[in-house]
Amino acid sequence: MGARIAVIGASGYTGAELLRLALAHPDLEPVLATSREFAGQPVRSVYPNLPTDLAFTTLDLDAAASCDVVFLALPHGAAARTAAELAARGTRVVDLSADLRFDDPEIYPAWFGEAHPEPALLADAVYGLPELHRAQLRDARLVANPGCYPTATLLALLPFLEAGVIDAATIVVTAASGVSGAGRGVNASVHFSHVDSNLKPYGAPIHKHTPEIEQELTRVAGSPVAITFLPILAPIPRGLLATATATLTSSIDPASLLEARYANEPFIVRTGTWPETKYASGSNLAFVHAVADPRTNRLITACAIDNLGKGAAGQALQNANLMLGFEETAGLTGGGLYP
Amino acid sequence: MGARIAVIGASGYTGAELLRLALAHPDLEPVLATSREFAGQPVRSVYPNLPTDLAFTTLDLDAAASCDVVFLALPHGAAARTAAELAARGTRVVDLSADLRFDDPEIYPAWFGEAHPEPALLADAVYGLPELHRAQLRDARLVANPGCYPTATLLALLPFLEAGVIDAATIVVTAASGVSGAGRGVNASVHFSHVDSNLKPYGAPIHKHTPEIEQELTRVAGSPVAITFLPILAPIPRGLLATATATLTSSIDPASLLEARYANEPFIVRTGTWPETKYASGSNLAFVHAVADPRTNRLITACAIDNLGKGAAGQALQNANLMLGFEETAGLTGGGLYP
Amino acid sequence: MGARIAVIGASGYTGAELLRLALAHPDLEPVLATSREFAGQPVRSVYPNLPTDLAFTTLDLDAAASCDVVFLALPHGAAARTAAELAARGTRVVDLSADLRFDDPEIYPAWFGEAHPEPALLADAVYGLPELHRAQLRDARLVANPGCYPTATLLALLPFLEAGVIDAATIVVTAASGVSGAGRGVNASVHFSHVDSNLKPYGAPIHKHTPEIEQELTRVAGSPVAITFLPILAPIPRGLLATATATLTSSIDPASLLEARYANEPFIVRTGTWPETKYASGSNLAFVHAVADPRTNRLITACAIDNLGKGAAGQALQNANLMLGFEETAGLTGGGLYP
Amino acid sequence: MGARIAVIGASGYTGAELLRLALAHPDLEPVLATSREFAGQPVRSVYPNLPTDLAFTTLDLDAAASCDVVFLALPHGAAARTAAELAARGTRVVDLSADLRFDDPEIYPAWFGEAHPEPALLADAVYGLPELHRAQLRDARLVANPGCYPTATLLALLPFLEAGVIDAATIVVTAASGVSGAGRGVNASVHFSHVDSNLKPYGAPIHKHTPEIEQELTRVAGSPVAITFLPILAPIPRGLLATATATLTSSIDPASLLEARYANEPFIVRTGTWPETKYASGSNLAFVHAVADPRTNRLITACAIDNLGKGAAGQALQNANLMLGFEETAGLTGGGLYP
Repeated sequence: MGARIAVIGASGYTGAELLRLALAHPDLEPVLATSREFAGQPVRSVYPNLPTDLAFTTLDLDAAASCDVVFLALPHGAAARTAAELAARGTRVVDLSADLRFDDPEIYPAWFGEAHPEPALLADAVYGLPELHRAQLRDARLVANPGCYPTATLLALLPFLEAGVIDAATIVVTAASGVSGAGRGVNASVHFSHVDSNLKPYGAPIHKHTPEIEQELTRVAGSPVAITFLPILAPIPRGLLATATATLTSSIDPASLLEARYANEPFIVRTGTWPETKYASGSNLAFVHAVADPRTNRLITACAIDNLGKGAAGQALQNANLMLGFEETAGLTGGGLYP
Repeated sequence: MGARIAVIGASGYTGAELLRLALAHPDLEPVLATSREFAGQPVRSVYPNLPTDLAFTTLDLDAAASCDVVFLALPHGAAARTAAELAARGTRVVDLSADLRFDDPEIYPAWFGEAHPEPALLADAVYGLPELHRAQLRDARLVANPGCYPTATLLALLPFLEAGVIDAATIVVTAASGVSGAGRGVNASVHFSHVDSNLKPYGAPIHKHTPEIEQELTRVAGSPVAITFLPILAPIPRGLLATATATLTSSIDPASLLEARYANEPFIVRTGTWPETKYASGSNLAFVHAVADPRTNRLITACAIDNLGKGAAGQALQNANLMLGFEETAGLTGGGLYP
Repeated sequence: MGARIAVIGASGYTGAELLRLALAHPDLEPVLATSREFAGQPVRSVYPNLPTDLAFTTLDLDAAASCDVVFLALPHGAAARTAAELAARGTRVVDLSADLRFDDPEIYPAWFGEAHPEPALLADAVYGLPELHRAQLRDARLVANPGCYPTATLLALLPFLEAGVIDAATIVVTAASGVSGAGRGVNASVHFSHVDSNLKPYGAPIHKHTPEIEQELTRVAGSPVAITFLPILAPIPRGLLATATATLTSSIDPASLLEARYANEPFIVRTGTWPETKYASGSNLAFVHAVADPRTNRLITACAIDNLGKGAAGQALQNANLMLGFEETAGLTGGGLYP
Repeated sequence: MGARIAVIGASGYTGAELLRLALAHPDLEPVLATSREFAGQPVRSVYPNLPTDLAFTTLDLDAAASCDVVFLALPHGAAARTAAELAARGTRVVDLSADLRFDDPEIYPAWFGEAHPEPALLADAVYGLPELHRAQLRDARLVANPGCYPTATLLALLPFLEAGVIDAATIVVTAASGVSGAGRGVNASVHFSHVDSNLKPYGAPIHKHTPEIEQELTRVAGSPVAITFLPILAPIPRGLLATATATLTSSIDPASLLEARYANEPFIVRTGTWPETKYASGSNLAFVHAVADPRTNRLITACAIDNLGKGAAGQALQNANLMLGFEETAGLTGGGLYP
């Protein structure tokens, strides 16, 4: 019998992917899946793809608190409040919202337009990018799982900032995401007839993932980093491609630097060619590649992930594995679904 | 250490899916993956999605024969010849080509336009639809893994023919398949710009899967069954939806009959609603549903699968599990990838 | 200056396609485009693709009645009531709803679950399939524009029923439609993440297009025809493929019969190969093909159209051309958009 | 009777789109369509979507030279040689290859790896971006039709460079294109099963469109401009989205500047929102938008086109209209095909 887990907000795409991965995990057992909209209905009535007899329930905090890990796939605000309740009960929490991602409590009101509901939690939360914070994550009780854009962007850029070979003031990020990143809710902008064969920028210049990317870049750079971030909606259900450029300050071979930095990382794949989102589909893999543009002295770097995998549920399980002392790759060794 | 398996013809889509599933199987270990086109190259250079250090090799029959099971993902003709070599060495074989699917050796020349290369093998091969031939498959040394269209069509129709509630002379099958069913080879008809947003019938009235469907329907009906079969190419990479109609000869509730027939089948899902291919993606699941049309007294029945899953590689592993005495569902319990 | 036209309900997909085609028509001038949701806003604020300075307005019946032709792209019920008002004022109307399609007023309550709001109109309305009712359409004041499924199904089947070479009691229709056929409204079933890579049957055995198909088949056959009709939702924004089978009662060459029947039809394309929806995209073309299945003595026939073209707005303009005495092909000579 | 045109290399996607647009043009008559691969076959046997009785022929230079305008949709090298032959005969030519786009004959060997086959032509060729070179195009006999990426990139960037409000040394371009941009030829990278749901960078840092973009930026800036250019392949058949960033040197409102610059341009659409490729499909429209990122003092600008429309065949017709003294918008007033 494995560790018992709860997924709070399990009927959204991220929640359902958490269930899918947890059901296939050798050491985790999902025992609780909450959903306000579908409480009382079998999970399979909403997600016939999921091989489980679980039914969605309303949130019972005590039942959740009795689990070994609770995953929060809730809207921001509600996530922090639920995390506070569970933290008070001593339960391990992996929060997939943005609520616990910021060290500085002032970032939240500036970017989300409201006071942070639980600022006291921020000091205890560890930013859940294992490639950057693995040691702290092993001891964490509260993990702020990174956003999908930040995950791919940071994996593409961090090695170069760590090595001190780029000018942080010149970073420009353009990233395209699949539609599932916008969630299961319906509106005109996710209508199949509108999205199919369509590409559109959105959110620039004030997308909410920006401060999260900047916080981690700043942490590594040791001085404030501000970036330009342009997200694009792409006609794919899953998948996220982040590309970034920055002026090089040293003459390096970018691909070799990635190779060295990620040599021991189990989920970061270096193929020596530009990454393609399709290979990551359904997996926790992140594909990275980078080149120098000698004509302009710029780095061009890219990372492809599944926005619901390494960009959300996969990474959440990776964090849970670290928190619980499991193999970091447990339940996450499957390859991407291709074609 | 699990059973050692070989995949012959591993660089096609079916071969790669066999590798993907076998790598995630708790009791199978892929030790050999052959490819004429890519021999000498790492599997990951062609399929970066696959978490393996295997390299493609040329076919060494003795090495293959030393495996516990050999999966053949070869063109027809070559498959039978290789199966004969392996059978002579006493090795268990699951052949994914059409070569061994027919009891009657005359069917092959009639539909494939050439003499069967190894007619003596036919008597020993078991048609690998576990829902129909489970007992024989447990003892089989040679399994003819069904085609994708036949798998879905038979799962949709067999319960009604077994129950004797339809007129077999009235069966009409219309089925739409994803593009991966046509293989990895390139030609104008699989160009993205041509396929995207396109639907087209093809192959009618002489698609090579027809005699295979008819053979199994005939076996169940006890008298010769001929069907009309219309395949359609759909703009999806994976997924197959078979629909069929037939005149009802008894007043029954089709959904209840499916429910009863498949109650103990681990991979056949009855949701009481029309099946959708997307829920099966990457899994070995088959979704079935049926209704009566009281105005015309016809049965309308449908089955959705992943053509590379239950329609090919998934079913091949299910058959290998049966042959090897493993749990039938071992390595195949994962849910479909959705969305 | 061309004929002045109004589009009532212009902000849905069909209404917008009517505007697109009318704007490109040499002899039509759209002067009125109504929309309850977007009244007061420029058409381009909702459809930036449309090169017009028109703004959506609320419905002013007198303004509409002053036009040479009014196109109704309204929900059923509202369409009939508006048609009645305009008919009373003597205005030519092309109604794209199902309201005026049935000769027999009893069909409406049986299939739509409510009394027909304007049964007196039915006798005056001409079913707008020019390939069948061209002469009457030239004199019509009130045209019931056919549904998308009926258009494709009838074009595929009518020649064979007219020629008396099929058994009408054996007709089975399976047809796949693009998502725009379900309209611009949003719900979970049109979410991109759900539809993409998905195929699903729906609506069987009681889809509302069934009685319309049966009415016209019955008219041609001279005796009551009932069919089995299975619609499928396909992951394409536009396009509709209808396939049908029926038992042949004579030995004929189906392709030749289609060729002869449609030799003088400007929009019906016979290529001698199975039709593909993509070639029809954005056009008023209908591609047809048929073969005999000698093994089962069945006809297999198919027709591909753009559900918003020949299946809705294109055909509506074709009907308007006939009513107004224009060249039947005026404004509709453009080829399909491919790739 | 309109002007007589020839399309040399008419069986590729660009050639076929030229035919489609020319057939719908009120004043052009396509009389010649050459194709080495399909010579002797009706155009409709390859493109059933095209309403024409033309057949593909081999290239007869005299016949082509007798036309009012010849469009060259040939591979590079062959294009220049054919242009030279036609220029020698005094025929107007619009070349859609890269051969005639460069003022500096040294660019060609540097980026294409071979000597320019007809360097003497370069001085006479006008770069066919009407928004920049309209006056010269009216008198041109030889037009170098811009590439798809350059068209969208230049339309997004030129107004800001002309106004002197950006630092040209900081320009970074990321652009995603539909698959038809790679042509009709087949290889593994255009297989539907590979492209669908996939995003991948390619060609960086040495894509052949780079020097063309730089030439025109340099012309406007008055001093050498080098850019970083990152192309991405997107899973759409048509459509191209170019995005660019650059450091602002003045405090301006980017959207207003675009509005003012393009106020009289018939094909450049400013909606005040981020452009979407789908609205441009099948049209000659270009949608532009731009914002300032006050946090980083950067401009973010974007342009969406149909790569086969304004990015190729549409713009070629626009140029032909200018050369022939027709209305610039003749035959190009149709809206985009949406949805």
